[in-house]
Order: sequence, then structure tokens, then C-alpha cells
Amino acid sequence: MDERLKKQLEFILEIDKEKNILRQTHLSGHGRRENDAEHAWHMAIMAYLLQEYSNEPVDIAKVMLMCLIHDVVEIDAGDTYAYDEEGLKTQKAREEAAKERIYSLLPEDQKERLTVLFDEFEACETPEAKFAKAMDNLQPLLLNHSNDGGDWREHGVTERQVYGRQGKTKAGSEKLYEVTDQLIQEHIRKGNIKGC
Amino acid sequence: MDERLKKQLEFILEIDKEKNILRQTHLSGHGRRENDAEHAWHMAIMAYLLQEYSNEPVDIAKVMLMCLIHDVVEIDAGDTYAYDEEGLKTQKAREEAAKERIYSLLPEDQKERLTVLFDEFEACETPEAKFAKAMDNLQPLLLNHSNDGGDWREHGVTERQVYGRQGKTKAGSEKLYEVTDQLIQEHIRKGNIKGC
Ligand SMILES: [Ca+2]
Repeated sequence: MDERLKKQLEFILEIDKEKNILRQTHLSGHGRRENDAEHAWHMAIMAYLLQEYSNEPVDIAKVMLMCLIHDVVEIDAGDTYAYDEEGLKTQKAREEAAKERIYSLLPEDQKERLTVLFDEFEACETPEAKFAKAMDNLQPLLLNHSNDGGDWREHGVTERQVYGRQGKTKAGSEKLYEVTDQLIQEHIRKGNIKGC
Repeated sequence: MDERLKKQLEFILEIDKEKNILRQTHLSGHGRRENDAEHAWHMAIMAYLLQEYSNEPVDIAKVMLMCLIHDVVEIDAGDTYAYDEEGLKTQKAREEAAKERIYSLLPEDQKERLTVLFDEFEACETPEAKFAKAMDNLQPLLLNHSNDGGDWREHGVTERQVYGRQGKTKAGSEKLYEVTDQLIQEHIRKGNIKGC
């Protein structure tokens, strides 16, 4: 087998580990905890189906790919819960090291392309990145809503924290932020999210 | 919330169930059984990274979307193991009913689009479908290879059966079929696949 294909297959096998990175979100039907690969799969399909609600036109293939690969770094860096203030301080450094190790398994041109795409997602400035981030927020919100807000209750999450994260959906989609806001308000009323 | 968005969100929540559909393949590192959502996520990234090996030029966004949604029908129909001859007889009918129920949750235009895409994948005649099918074959082959062929041994799978399925990779990618053939031969030599 030639060197290029060998490197590609090594990367492909390496990212299999993403299926073992557990998130704080639980599957619908009060299921087990979700893993990063499942979350990414779900986000990519959502991006395709909901693209009409993006504030700006997007290259949907790029958004889908961003969704699919955005959590690969967590193979080394672990999942940092959106409301874990301590973990968030070191997240950037941990993810940078992971990015270098994991994407270096690929041939140089593909390493470059995926690294640029990951950085674009993180920077959250382009229409594609903003819409992908909206999916990253909306996907766990929908699951958590379907489970009566259990993930928020379990972690004692506050209104300020939820809006701090979910508020960013607005930059990707005003329309989906409207729904987000309605759901958050419902869960504040029910006491699943602590008022502040 | 308007009716269209409501339907889209219902579909999105419904397909969460795909994360509970277990396959016969085990994760690398002699892990647990893989589920359909993880498999689809892995295939879509593989399609992107390996597109240069497709026999014919492909619309990669279409291939990725095909990979992502091709197993949604298994939420109702269950996973049919590639070497389960009894299950394969009823697979088509079970999947047709599932396709109708699940995609009908979507607005009409999106139901139509995803149904056409699923049918195109199943028919395996276009360049995109052939390449997506190659991913559907190669993904479990790579995992099983990394686990010393344990999935073949467990089910007493024969050379004839493996080539019956994996031979179809050739229609999508001559190059990836070469690798497939090398791996199969290695596992026949090691006795993980039964000669016939
Ligand atoms: Ca994350």
C-alpha cells in the first residue's frame, strides 16, 4: 500500500476512538450518555435539514464537514462540559495539542485542510462556522428538552450559563434562536434551569 | 413555531433512535458493538478523505449525505447482518415500510429529497452511490481488521460470503478494492475467514 493511503487509513482508524468520548447529554427516551461521534453525526444531518434558517447563505458541504470533525480533538483532550468553568480555562491548550497530534496522522495537504476547517469552526466568524456552532448548541438542547431538562437539573445549570452558550445560536440563525429562547424559557418556568 | 420547522425538529428527534441500533461490528481496541449513527459518521468522514480514489468524479456533499442517512430505516427495520441469509430475504420489505414512516415526518419536499437519495444509494448505480457503498463495506472491514478479524470468526463467515459483499467495493473504487482484497487474503491465511 502506498504511503499516502496508509496515512489516511491510520487517521480513519484513530478517529474511531471518538465513539468512546462521552458527553454530558443523554440520548432521547432518557437513554445513556451520548458520545462525540453520535453528536457529530446528528449535527451534520441537522445542518443539512435546517440550512434554510441560516442567517447567511452557507456552503452546506463545508458546514457538514465542520460538524463531522469538530470534536476529533476530544479524543485526546476529552469533552469539556459547556458549563465546566475550570475545564474551560485549559480547554484551548489541550485541544491545540490534540489537533496537532491527530491531524498529523494525515498526508500534509489533508492535515492542512482539516486544521484550517477546525480553526474556522472555533473562530466562529464565517457564515459556515456560525451555523455549525448553532447546530452544536441546538442538538443537545433538543435532546435535553426531550428528557425534561434532566441534564440541566443534574448539573444545577443556571439561566445565565445557558444563555451564555445558547445565545451564540443567534449569530448563525435568528429563527433557530427564537425556538431556543422559547425552550429555555419553558425550562426556567419549570425550574429545570435555575433563575439567576 | 411554524408547522414546517416543527416537522423538521420531530424528524431530527426521531432519528436520535439510530444511536441505539447495534451492528455486528465491534469498535477498534476490541471495543463494544458499534451503532448505526457511529458507523454513518465514520463513513461520511471516510468518503471525504478518500474521495480521490473514487473510480469516477463524485459530488462529495451528496456522497456524505448518503452516508449519513443510509441507515435511518433501521430504526424500524433493525440492522440486517451482511451475512444473515434469512434476514436478507425480508430486508427490502421491512426497509420500505420504515422509509415511508420515518421520512414522512419531514415536510414533503425534504421527504422527497431524502427518499430519492436513499433509493439512489440502494440502487447502487450512480458514481455517488457506488462510492458510498464502498465506504459502507470498507468501514467495518477496517474495524474488524484492527480487531484481528474477530467479527468474522464469531459468525463463521466464509470467503465466498466476504467476497460477495466486499467485491462490490470495486465498482466504487478499484484502488480501495485492492486494499480490501489484500486484507481479506490475509484473514483467510490466518483462518479468520473460512475458505470455501
Ligand atoms: Ca465539544
